Amino acid sequence: MNPYIKASEAAIAQARAARDTIRNGFDRPTAGMAPGMTQCNMISLPRDWAFDFLLYAQRNPRSCPVLDVCEAGSYRTVLAEGADLRTDIPRYRIWRQGELADEITDATAIWAEHPDLVTFLIGCSFTFETPMREAGIDIRHITDNCNVPMYRTNRLCRPAGRLQGELVVSMRPVAAHRIPDAVTISGRFPAVHGAPVHVGDPHSLGIADLMQPDFGDPVRIEEGEVPVFWACGVTPQAAVMKSGVPFAISHAPGHMFITDVPDSAWQEG
Amino acid sequence: MNPYIKASEAAIAQARAARDTIRNGFDRPTAGMAPGMTQCNMISLPRDWAFDFLLYAQRNPRSCPVLDVCEAGSYRTVLAEGADLRTDIPRYRIWRQGELADEITDATAIWAEHPDLVTFLIGCSFTFETPMREAGIDIRHITDNCNVPMYRTNRLCRPAGRLQGELVVSMRPVAAHRIPDAVTISGRFPAVHGAPVHVGDPHSLGIADLMQPDFGDPVRIEEGEVPVFWACGVTPQAAVMKSGVPFAISHAPGHMFITDVPDSAWQEG
Repeated sequence: MNPYIKASEAAIAQARAARDTIRNGFDRPTAGMAPGMTQCNMISLPRDWAFDFLLYAQRNPRSCPVLDVCEAGSYRTVLAEGADLRTDIPRYRIWRQGELADEITDATAIWAEHPDLVTFLIGCSFTFETPMREAGIDIRHITDNCNVPMYRTNRLCRPAGRLQGELVVSMRPVAAHRIPDAVTISGRFPAVHGAPVHVGDPHSLGIADLMQPDFGDPVRIEEGEVPVFWACGVTPQAAVMKSGVPFAISHAPGHMFITDVPDSAWQEG
Repeated sequence: MNPYIKASEAAIAQARAARDTIRNGFDRPTAGMAPGMTQCNMISLPRDWAFDFLLYAQRNPRSCPVLDVCEAGSYRTVLAEGADLRTDIPRYRIWRQGELADEITDATAIWAEHPDLVTFLIGCSFTFETPMREAGIDIRHITDNCNVPMYRTNRLCRPAGRLQGELVVSMRPVAAHRIPDAVTISGRFPAVHGAPVHVGDPHSLGIADLMQPDFGDPVRIEEGEVPVFWACGVTPQAAVMKSGVPFAISHAPGHMFITDVPDSAWQEG
């Protein structure tokens, strides 16, 4: 992050208003909210799993770019002053022994039962959607007001300690002649997934049917458009599932944490 | 790292030959050895300190860019097949309770006494020296065949758990009119310290005398040259000192580990 690039007061006010809306019960995907402000994936694990997870992220930076790690037990982050990670995400998933046990909209009570959680905030490809839209590239799930489609792939991440799992990707259909621009623009943001990992040919990623995403919603693909795949911050949830982590809290896919940091702070070069 | 950028067989053979030379007793700084191949800082800490250190690195990526983390107890790295981290560095420092206790050239015996060490390989600014030299920028410590000068500064890193310490910087004098090029070229390598953190005015970094570096050797600064400061991978050693880490092994400043990965694999954009 470039710490000298700060959001305007107005932009921070928008991010705060979005978090207030979420805290007061908004329960929808967050793509397009507080445009230009960084949205994050979240995963909270017991302290005993924190090193394994941080190492998993370090070894798989394309899918797990760490934007902040909170102190053990803390629900505060330097990325958004005054925010509360127990309430400021629209929807949470509760994981037990690697199985999805529950979905909730307020994690305050369950957080209190697990006082040593270490929380990781992971970059999200929503960050480069704003500059892609500004460049005239349609972002289908925003246009169609649904959740981005995400898929578990047949690509294994590099394991770390007890953690292993597949790469999860998000997909955006892009007109064939705009694919170079989509690669270039997203590639300027290596800290938030960066350039695509794959263009076209879902079968070689082990994706049988684009209309049946593992997370999120299917989106229409028009004539002349090619599916483009980016590494996705839901990858940690796939690792929790595959590795049988005893307990974890995550965001629900597409339901992100909105920070006070502008997307432009992650741009390189 | 771009995993698709591989070194040539000849370049890997040069790196292997350099490691052989080192294993057989070479005890000098490594700048300029096996040109074009990535050199690394090393720090090995007890398993109990590994999360704190990985978090320290995550929070201070400019000074502590992690290139690999070895399995607990292992002296093998994915960055150089067959290398042995106990012997393939010219000179090691042994730290006890944050104090420099010894310097040795073979760490095999002491490693055996500490079987749970987690070893971190950290990027080194030597990586961008080759492209800077190719662009006609003199790298003084290579030209003058000495160690790069390094300084503890008055800038504190962001702490993590029990770890805290100052930013350490390396310094290269650069002709004033080439400073934009030096910034641009090194800035293409964010994974190995990237652009400088400071140009000119050593006093504002708390450096009283450039001719008295805290690590390495002083270098001549010619008329028309300005001291340029880059974040340095000796920063972890400053944290070990300030935080009273009970035991650690590090490389001796300037005496690096030479990998089989080409410098160009770290170039962005």
